[in-house]
Amino acid sequence: MHHHTDPALHHCIEQCWSCRDTCQSTLFNYCLEQGGHHVEPGHVRLMMDCIQMCQTSADFMTRNSQLHALICAACAAVCEACAKSCDAMDDAEMKKCAEICRRCAQSCREMGERAGLTAHHHG
Amino acid sequence: MHHHTDPALHHCIEQCWSCRDTCQSTLFNYCLEQGGHHVEPGHVRLMMDCIQMCQTSADFMTRNSQLHALICAACAAVCEACAKSCDAMDDAEMKKCAEICRRCAQSCREMGERAGLTAHHHG
Amino acid sequence: MHHHTDPALHHCIEQCWSCRDTCQSTLFNYCLEQGGHHVEPGHVRLMMDCIQMCQTSADFMTRNSQLHALICAACAAVCEACAKSCDAMDDAEMKKCAEICRRCAQSCREMGERAGLTAHHHG
Amino acid sequence: MHHHTDPALHHCIEQCWSCRDTCQSTLFNYCLEQGGHHVEPGHVRLMMDCIQMCQTSADFMTRNSQLHALICAACAAVCEACAKSCDAMDDAEMKKCAEICRRCAQSCREMGERAGLTAHHHG
Repeated sequence: MHHHTDPALHHCIEQCWSCRDTCQSTLFNYCLEQGGHHVEPGHVRLMMDCIQMCQTSADFMTRNSQLHALICAACAAVCEACAKSCDAMDDAEMKKCAEICRRCAQSCREMGERAGLTAHHHG
Repeated sequence: MHHHTDPALHHCIEQCWSCRDTCQSTLFNYCLEQGGHHVEPGHVRLMMDCIQMCQTSADFMTRNSQLHALICAACAAVCEACAKSCDAMDDAEMKKCAEICRRCAQSCREMGERAGLTAHHHG
Repeated sequence: MHHHTDPALHHCIEQCWSCRDTCQSTLFNYCLEQGGHHVEPGHVRLMMDCIQMCQTSADFMTRNSQLHALICAACAAVCEACAKSCDAMDDAEMKKCAEICRRCAQSCREMGERAGLTAHHHG
Repeated sequence: MHHHTDPALHHCIEQCWSCRDTCQSTLFNYCLEQGGHHVEPGHVRLMMDCIQMCQTSADFMTRNSQLHALICAACAAVCEACAKSCDAMDDAEMKKCAEICRRCAQSCREMGERAGLTAHHHG
């Protein structure tokens, strides 16, 4: 079909969807039910950031957008931050979510690096 | 209310919504009606990229996300590329769209620079 | 410009964006900070439902989609449910949010009725 | 995990994602490349409507939103309209897309009917 013949691109799209799906399901069906620090503003924001940026990244790649590597590089940073927030919760459900975020971050970072792109902090 | 007291942030959110709205309306109610090179894949992709990234950027800022500057920096690059594609059409409607994209790019770039962030090409 | 000359459509798009913006800002910058029953799963879900459906409705109208009345009718029901959830919180911030949701519901309902469309429960 | 134990819900979520993904990939990587009546405004709008409504529907179900059946019923109508537009193109690629839209419409219709909900035209 008109699907991506580039296996790295295809793999990265799948990681983004998997991460978006896991974060959305975890946020609404686990974190909200748990309450307490699972619904702290900083954590919920990062989960929403991760959901939205993974979707944006997957869509740029699916559209074969010329700017997809830039978006993937930014997405990697968001997924990494979300993974840290999940890990800090210190329970099995959140550890699983963190692992999927980290796998997605890794795949997005590689897409960015392929294009010589990375998000940079100056000082 | 619980709205942003930071005027630069507030201004940038408005630029992003204005850009998203203009691109969406221009794409569906002008470009598609015009046909020809107004519907060339590269142009339509950039318009969609711009619509999606402006929304993502506006949402990160509205949520007061800690990573908003990173997303704004990436959004600036997308808006700049979309402005170029609009300018190349060389008609009044697209020039107006290009100008709004450029204004949004400028505002997003400033949000990124405030945080010492910018999207970087190596080589 | 290529904007909507139909004033009812234009008004409804504005109500949808206003409702989406208010719900998103209220959820992330007020409800999450308040905690307690402001972050109960049912309430957060309805706020997210309202954000997403208002956006979908605004986008269908902006694209001049032939199916916009159907989407507006569904959006009206979502906004109405969200308004009830906000009202139940019984504080000034949430009352303001409820009022904006109700105004959007009213406008969307009218768009649906214009097309002879309404969401129906059988029994 | 915290995934849906209701098999009908799970199935419908998968149909919505499959339909969204197929429509997005077909629109950007096939229709835009083909040009001609594959990029007629009415067709492109319906493809975008279908992409957006399938996503909204999948998200309502993933969040276990109480209003998901209402959204599924509206989604069924959008998918059905998109299927018709794809079928009218009369080529193999679009026939495949139409079939996936129709499968999604069927699944969404069943979710709506379970709740006694359906989108209604009066006269």
